[in-house]
Amino acid sequence: MNIYSNALAADTHLDVEGLFTEGFGQYDDWIDEMCQQFLHSNDSCDPIPVSELKTLFTDTTMPAQQQSMGQYLDEFQHQILPHCSHLASPTYVGHMTSPLPNFVSQLSRLVMILNQNMMKIESCRGLNFVERQVLAMLHKEVFHLDDAAYLQNVQDANVNFGCFTSGGTVANITAMWVARNQRQAALQASGSRGVIIGSELMHYSFDKAADLLGLDLIRLPFDDQYCLPLPHLKQALSEAQSQDQPVVALVAIAGTTDFGSVDPIAEMAELARAQGAHLHVDGAWGGAMVLCEEGKAMLSDIHLADSVTIDGHKQLMTPIGCGLLLTRDVATLGNIRKEAPYAIRSSSLDQGRFTLEGTRPAMALYLHAAFHLIGKSGYGELLSKSLARAQMLAEMLNETQEFELVHAPKMNLMVYRYLPQGYRGRRLTEQENEFVNTFNVALQKRQRALGNTFVSRTKRVTNLYPQQPLVLFRAVMLNPLTTRTHLQTVIADQLVIAESLEREVRDQDLDLGGMQ
Amino acid sequence: MNIYSNALAADTHLDVEGLFTEGFGQYDDWIDEMCQQFLHSNDSCDPIPVSELKTLFTDTTMPAQQQSMGQYLDEFQHQILPHCSHLASPTYVGHMTSPLPNFVSQLSRLVMILNQNMMKIESCRGLNFVERQVLAMLHKEVFHLDDAAYLQNVQDANVNFGCFTSGGTVANITAMWVARNQRQAALQASGSRGVIIGSELMHYSFDKAADLLGLDLIRLPFDDQYCLPLPHLKQALSEAQSQDQPVVALVAIAGTTDFGSVDPIAEMAELARAQGAHLHVDGAWGGAMVLCEEGKAMLSDIHLADSVTIDGHKQLMTPIGCGLLLTRDVATLGNIRKEAPYAIRSSSLDQGRFTLEGTRPAMALYLHAAFHLIGKSGYGELLSKSLARAQMLAEMLNETQEFELVHAPKMNLMVYRYLPQGYRGRRLTEQENEFVNTFNVALQKRQRALGNTFVSRTKRVTNLYPQQPLVLFRAVMLNPLTTRTHLQTVIADQLVIAESLEREVRDQDLDLGGMQ
Repeated sequence: MNIYSNALAADTHLDVEGLFTEGFGQYDDWIDEMCQQFLHSNDSCDPIPVSELKTLFTDTTMPAQQQSMGQYLDEFQHQILPHCSHLASPTYVGHMTSPLPNFVSQLSRLVMILNQNMMKIESCRGLNFVERQVLAMLHKEVFHLDDAAYLQNVQDANVNFGCFTSGGTVANITAMWVARNQRQAALQASGSRGVIIGSELMHYSFDKAADLLGLDLIRLPFDDQYCLPLPHLKQALSEAQSQDQPVVALVAIAGTTDFGSVDPIAEMAELARAQGAHLHVDGAWGGAMVLCEEGKAMLSDIHLADSVTIDGHKQLMTPIGCGLLLTRDVATLGNIRKEAPYAIRSSSLDQGRFTLEGTRPAMALYLHAAFHLIGKSGYGELLSKSLARAQMLAEMLNETQEFELVHAPKMNLMVYRYLPQGYRGRRLTEQENEFVNTFNVALQKRQRALGNTFVSRTKRVTNLYPQQPLVLFRAVMLNPLTTRTHLQTVIADQLVIAESLEREVRDQDLDLGGMQ
Repeated sequence: MNIYSNALAADTHLDVEGLFTEGFGQYDDWIDEMCQQFLHSNDSCDPIPVSELKTLFTDTTMPAQQQSMGQYLDEFQHQILPHCSHLASPTYVGHMTSPLPNFVSQLSRLVMILNQNMMKIESCRGLNFVERQVLAMLHKEVFHLDDAAYLQNVQDANVNFGCFTSGGTVANITAMWVARNQRQAALQASGSRGVIIGSELMHYSFDKAADLLGLDLIRLPFDDQYCLPLPHLKQALSEAQSQDQPVVALVAIAGTTDFGSVDPIAEMAELARAQGAHLHVDGAWGGAMVLCEEGKAMLSDIHLADSVTIDGHKQLMTPIGCGLLLTRDVATLGNIRKEAPYAIRSSSLDQGRFTLEGTRPAMALYLHAAFHLIGKSGYGELLSKSLARAQMLAEMLNETQEFELVHAPKMNLMVYRYLPQGYRGRRLTEQENEFVNTFNVALQKRQRALGNTFVSRTKRVTNLYPQQPLVLFRAVMLNPLTTRTHLQTVIADQLVIAESLEREVRDQDLDLGGMQ
C-alpha cells in the first residue's frame, strides 16, 4: 500500500460536467507526494538520458476518451515527473530559475480558481488596482519619485508606472517598441533604419526586438570590466549621426548574465538624452538588487533610465511568467497605446490599452504575496546572502589549482573553467585553449548527464585571452538553500568527472574532438 | 470559531529561509474556503463599486517587514478576494474566459513546484518533448497530415508544429512576423511597406503586429454574413500590386469574437498562394471547434492555412496564459529563428530558438492534462452543448419582443440589443438608434454594477442598419454549467433593469445623454 492507493481506490470516472463540479481533494496527498518526490531527487534519478527521452513522447493522437484523475496522475508520476529538470536542487547552481517559496504552491490553487484576465477591468475588477499598486511599489524602489507622484498616478488609468509581461523578453521588446515610436518623426525624416546600441553582452531578446521593429542592432565590444566602453559608444553615436541614422535606444545592462557587470548608466543616460534617444536598462537579472544595500550601491544610477526590465521569476522569487517593464515617466507607454471600440475602450480602465500582450494572467498576485510574505527586509537578506555566497564560491575556486576564475564576482554569479593537468598556472597558446575549451564542454556535458550537480555553460571572450572565446562554467547563486557544503559537492563532482575525463583522454578512450 | 481559526492559531513567523523549507499545509483548508467563497458568490457581493475600488489600493510602499501567511491570507480574504471578477459564475455569459475544470487547481500546485522553463532543454528536460507532443496532437486535429509526418517531425528539434505563446496576441504577432520575414526579398526589392489584409473584424492584436513590424493593415468591410468579401479582397490585392506594395499576409478569422462568423478560408488560401503571401487563420476563439462534429463542418478548410492561432485558455479550458500558434509547414518558424552561443545554442534542442518569448512556463502541462482528462470525446460534448446552448438562448431572445437578435448564432456566441417601448417591431431612424444605443450602454453598465448577471458590450455596424454602428450585448456560451434557468435569469435581470431605466427616463430622473 502506498500513499495513493486510497486515492486510486476512490478514483471515479466523471462525466464531463463533473470535472467542473466535483472536487479532486482525494488526490491532494498524492500530489503532495509527487511534490516531495520531485524536491528530494535530482536529474541523476532519471533512468533515461535526455538524448533518449524523445522516444517516450511520440504518440501524437489526442486521447479519444477521458481518463480518470487517478489514471492520469499515475501516468504523470511515472512517465513525466521523473524526467523534469530539478532546478530547485541546492546543488544546481547554473540556472536563473529559483526554487519558489512554499506559499506559492498553496496560493496557486486560489489564483487558478480566480483565473482573472488582467487585460480588461471587467475580467479582473479589483486586481486591476492591485497590479498597479504592485508596479508602483517596485517603481518606487527603482525610481524614487516623490510620494505625491505615486499618490497621484498609482490609480490614474491613463498613465502607467509600467506593465507586467510574460517575461523579460517581452519587456525588452516593449521598451524598444516604445523607443522606436517616440522617434517616429526623426525616422520618417531621415528615411534610414533606426539603431539600438548596447554592448555585446546584450541579451538576445534585443535581436528579436531589432528584427521585429526593423531596427539595426549595434553590439559594441565590452571593456576590461565587461561593461560598455563610453569611447566606443561615442564613436558609434557619431557614426550613426554621420549616416543620418536616428538612434532609437541605448541599452545598459544591469547585471550581465555571465559576468554580473553593470554598464555606466549615468553617462549613457546623458548621451541618450543628448540624442533624443531612449535609455533602457535591462535589469532582468540584476534589477532586483535595488532591494539590498550592496545592490543599491551597484545600481545607484538606475533611476536615470527611461525604462527598466526586471524579471519577477528570477531574483524576486515568483513563478515563471512574471516579467516587468517599469517606466520612469508615467506617459511612456502611451507611445504604444492601442484601443478597440468593441473591446478595449478608450475611456475604460483597461490595462490592455498599454501592453504588447492581450489576455494576461494575474501574475501580479504572486508578486503581491512575495512583497508581503518576504518583505523588503526579507529580500534584502536573501540578496545579500546570495552575494556573500558568490564570494564564498569564488574563494573556494581560487583556492584550487584546477579551476580558473575569470574575475571576482560583481554580483551573485561568476564564470570559471577547469584546467586539465599540464595546462595550469601559465599562459596558454591558442591551440591549448582550444583543447581546454573542448575539455570543458565535455566536462559540463558529462556533469549534466550524471545529474548530481549542475553548472551551466557559456562561451565568451574574456580578459584572460581577449582574442579567443573561452568555454566557461557559469555558476548562479540564487537558491537560498545552497550551503557551503552544497558548493563543495559541486566542485568535488566536477573534479571527479574531470579526473576521469583526463584519464580517458590519456588512454585514448575518449575522442574530445567529436564532442565540440 | 471559523474554519481558519486553527490556521491562525498555528500561524508562525518564519525566517526567510523558512519560506523555502516549511510547508504551508495548515492553510490548505482556509484556501479551500476562499475558493468556495469565490465560486459561490458573484460581483453583487462586492460592497464597493468598481469606480471606488481604486481608493483601496493607493499605498505604494513595499512592506518593510515580512507578514506571516495567516496575516496575509486574512488580508487577502477581506481586502482582495471580494473584489475579483466572478468570471466562472454561470450567469456571467459575456466573457471568453471559461471556468476551469477542478483538476487544474490541484495540478497547479505541482506545476508551480516544478517551475520548469520551456525555453531551454536544460531547464525542462522531458517537458520539452511533452510540449512538442501536445502541439502535434492539436496540429493533427487542424491539419491532418499523414501519420508518417507526425512520427518524423514530432521530436525533430529543428522543426516545429508550432509554439506555445502567452496568448492569442503573441501568437498572431508571431504569425505576422514569420510572414513578413518570408517576404523579405520582395519587401527589399519594392522598398514599400508590406500589407496585411483582413476584415474589419480582425482582432486588435493585428494593429499591434502591424505597428511593431512596420506594415500597413487593411481592414475590409465585411459582407452580410460578417465575413470577408472576396471581391473587396481581390480589389485590395490589385491595388496593392499597382502600388508595388508586397502583400505579406491575409488574415482569415475563424470565429469572429462578436458574430462567430468564419471567413472564406479556401478562397483566401488560394489568393494568398498566388501572391506569395502567408494565410493566417485567427482561430483564437473558434479554432478549438475542430474538436466537435458541427465545428469541423464550419472549419472544413482550416487545414489550408499556413498558420492558425488557437487559445487554450478560451475553449480548451486551460488557465490564462496558454496561447498556441500552429504552423502547417514544420519549417515555418525557422523564419524567426534566433540563437545565442552563450544561451540558446544552434545545435541544442532548445525551443527558445523559435519563439518570440524567452523564458516560458509549462502551460503545456495544463493542456496535456486537459487532453487526457477531458479527452477528444469530452471536448466534442462540451463544444456541441455550447453550440446548442447558443441556439437555445437565441430562441429565448426571439420569443421576446423586448430583445432584437442581430443574427442567428453561427457559433456559440451572439449579439443582440434591448429595444425600449415604442422602439419595437419597426424600422428606426438614425436618431432613434442613437437613443437605443445610449439606452443599451446604460443597461449594460447598470447590469454590470449590480453584478448578478453579466453580458458584455460591443459596438458594431450590422446588417440591421448598415450605415450606423449599434451598441450590442454579446453573449458567449462557454460555461458548461450554464443552464436554461441561468439564461432565463440573465434575460429576466436585463428586463427588470431595462424597465426601471425606462421609468427613470420617463420620469426624467435619468439623463441618458450623460452616460454615453
